[in-house]
Amino acid sequence: MKTIYITRRETFNAAHKLWREEWSEEKNWEVFGKCSNKNWHGHNFSIYVTVKGIPSEETGFVINLKELSLILKKEVVEPLDHKNLNLDVPFLQGILASTENIAIQIWDRIKDPISEAGGELVKIKLVETENNYVEYYGGKEPF
Amino acid sequence: MKTIYITRRETFNAAHKLWREEWSEEKNWEVFGKCSNKNWHGHNFSIYVTVKGIPSEETGFVINLKELSLILKKEVVEPLDHKNLNLDVPFLQGILASTENIAIQIWDRIKDPISEAGGELVKIKLVETENNYVEYYGGKEPF
Amino acid sequence: MKTIYITRRETFNAAHKLWREEWSEEKNWEVFGKCSNKNWHGHNFSIYVTVKGIPSEETGFVINLKELSLILKKEVVEPLDHKNLNLDVPFLQGILASTENIAIQIWDRIKDPISEAGGELVKIKLVETENNYVEYYGGKEPF
Amino acid sequence: MKTIYITRRETFNAAHKLWREEWSEEKNWEVFGKCSNKNWHGHNFSIYVTVKGIPSEETGFVINLKELSLILKKEVVEPLDHKNLNLDVPFLQGILASTENIAIQIWDRIKDPISEAGGELVKIKLVETENNYVEYYGGKEPF
Amino acid sequence: MKTIYITRRETFNAAHKLWREEWSEEKNWEVFGKCSNKNWHGHNFSIYVTVKGIPSEETGFVINLKELSLILKKEVVEPLDHKNLNLDVPFLQGILASTENIAIQIWDRIKDPISEAGGELVKIKLVETENNYVEYYGGKEPF
Amino acid sequence: MKTIYITRRETFNAAHKLWREEWSEEKNWEVFGKCSNKNWHGHNFSIYVTVKGIPSEETGFVINLKELSLILKKEVVEPLDHKNLNLDVPFLQGILASTENIAIQIWDRIKDPISEAGGELVKIKLVETENNYVEYYGGKEPF
Repeated sequence: MKTIYITRRETFNAAHKLWREEWSEEKNWEVFGKCSNKNWHGHNFSIYVTVKGIPSEETGFVINLKELSLILKKEVVEPLDHKNLNLDVPFLQGILASTENIAIQIWDRIKDPISEAGGELVKIKLVETENNYVEYYGGKEPF
Repeated sequence: MKTIYITRRETFNAAHKLWREEWSEEKNWEVFGKCSNKNWHGHNFSIYVTVKGIPSEETGFVINLKELSLILKKEVVEPLDHKNLNLDVPFLQGILASTENIAIQIWDRIKDPISEAGGELVKIKLVETENNYVEYYGGKEPF
Repeated sequence: MKTIYITRRETFNAAHKLWREEWSEEKNWEVFGKCSNKNWHGHNFSIYVTVKGIPSEETGFVINLKELSLILKKEVVEPLDHKNLNLDVPFLQGILASTENIAIQIWDRIKDPISEAGGELVKIKLVETENNYVEYYGGKEPF
Repeated sequence: MKTIYITRRETFNAAHKLWREEWSEEKNWEVFGKCSNKNWHGHNFSIYVTVKGIPSEETGFVINLKELSLILKKEVVEPLDHKNLNLDVPFLQGILASTENIAIQIWDRIKDPISEAGGELVKIKLVETENNYVEYYGGKEPF
Repeated sequence: MKTIYITRRETFNAAHKLWREEWSEEKNWEVFGKCSNKNWHGHNFSIYVTVKGIPSEETGFVINLKELSLILKKEVVEPLDHKNLNLDVPFLQGILASTENIAIQIWDRIKDPISEAGGELVKIKLVETENNYVEYYGGKEPF
Repeated sequence: MKTIYITRRETFNAAHKLWREEWSEEKNWEVFGKCSNKNWHGHNFSIYVTVKGIPSEETGFVINLKELSLILKKEVVEPLDHKNLNLDVPFLQGILASTENIAIQIWDRIKDPISEAGGELVKIKLVETENNYVEYYGGKEPF
């Protein structure tokens, strides 16, 4: 079975801070450092979404990238781009806006739409800066 | 056992289109969108080839990268660079030239030469644009 | 006067060949090498368009990047993306499709629309591969 | 005279919005689009600072990059990194936080320290995203 | 269990050569090619270190990236940056300085400190040039 | 006159140190810092060479990039790649191996061959790391 992994990149530019309301500013600083700046900071995020499948004999596609891109535009880029991740995003309410947690929430949001489009979501890579990123396999541990 | 994965990148610039001869131009457009432009379009492709092995005590190498590069130059770059993937490449004849299918054909072509050079091919990553790429593990599904 | 230069990048993926009809295939090969492949090859092109001006006191903008992007989408990306530069592009008809000549034609096409949007086009950079690009200043020679 | 231009890159991640207090939210949206989101958004900014000079016979340097980097860390990275460009930065108070205006303010801030270190600041390039950046030559217009 | 993989990049610039003392210069050239130049050559190395874990409910972190970065600065960047990998690095003494071998030694050096900081080291990627890199999973073979 | 600037990139990986023989190790450290490590360090250098001219009516070329690349391979890559810039390169003997000085020496070496190939060398950009590079216009000062 000639399983292929296909990946689509989208980008969004957003503000956030790492902050626990129940902690003092000093405690937030101690744990989160400069990421706790109370007036926010921001990033150019890149998200790489990987879908697994066997290429269709008819189209040669695992999934039509136009469809995958439309899902990502609707479920990720529109709600997150040029937004404040702590304040403006319903599906991130009440969640500490670490890159780790954002990746998990995005997974939960796009898994079903991708499935309905005939693909199997297997990995998200969320890049915050050129020096750090997270990867999430839906809880699986390939290594 | 200290297994290392080593990767070599090569590049090729080629034209292709996504097109089924037995379909009308309209049907091709409906399925493949702008990729079906009948006069072709093109890309700068990058291919990353990963070989697995235990570093030799004598050389510190999993595989000599000069040898690996020579195999890739002969089997991938020469036949594909500055070519039309639908028309000019014997080993892609009759195959819908999606990135997925190209990756699979390249795998079949380089697996044995790499094996003869003492390496074990375990992954191909074929990058079409900064926004999309495919990965192929020879049919294996690591995740 | 606080003149700022602002640059917008757009991308397009296209096929082309370097070819003179009045020359034999051998002569074309001799001059243009692998770029003369008669069945075309292709690239992911990036175009960087630079506009000069003094930031508006009201908006802080030299030019609204949304407007600049719309001009480039209409005048460059739509006519060139997923096209054959030799066959499909009215404003490149009869022109040898070297990166140099494409850059000059794009300049002539976008200069006036940018001017009408209140900006002054001063530079185009057209990137063909990671190893080569051309720059055009509308004929000016800053160095 | 063997004049060399040497460039140092630094990065900072910050939140900002494009917003005029005296305008309604609708007017801000009309002019600034998604960049006017009232709860901010953010970017990974890169700044490239170019200094001109003749390499010292003794050191081969136009300017010692350690010194240049220290100036940029003190004058740019410390005040801007992980900050809100509208709220947290004294030297940007009262200034519309467009990339153009930020570049001009940074110039005014680093020109003299670089001069005291024996260099001549001639260019700032401030990159907001992979698709847009501004350049400032202190008001000069090389092209 | 929502396992996340988080990666931190650090860089170091170093000289090395591939060379066996007990071989002649000719034999070294035959096996290692230009990498055997007896007066050394060098690279800008990038190292990507991946740590696996479940994000803390309190901090949203798998591991605090400041801590991870401090470990990498102390154990990798300080001993290797602007050094000769064959001559200057105690933990590489007597080891053929191939990228493969360097990656294995770095793993052995950072595994425990990362563990003490509460993380589980699962992957190192060591990039030597834009055309080649190695990956090491501590001997595991995920594919 | 439709003057175009065309740029070709080549790369070389080399060792060097910043060091004055007549200074003590302490004095070298004081001035050159970690770049003075007596056992060398190294970099992946990229060189961008820009040639100016009017595209030929016959070929559309300012200069044939194959020819330009051959000149750069012969005059820059062969003598510098996988070499020690202080010890192995005749045309750098007796010259402090700062990026500034290397750029000037490369200019003097490639200016005439490019001129004989019908092009006019106008700029060299020599990139040492992602954080620093120098540019040289043959002594001209465009800004």
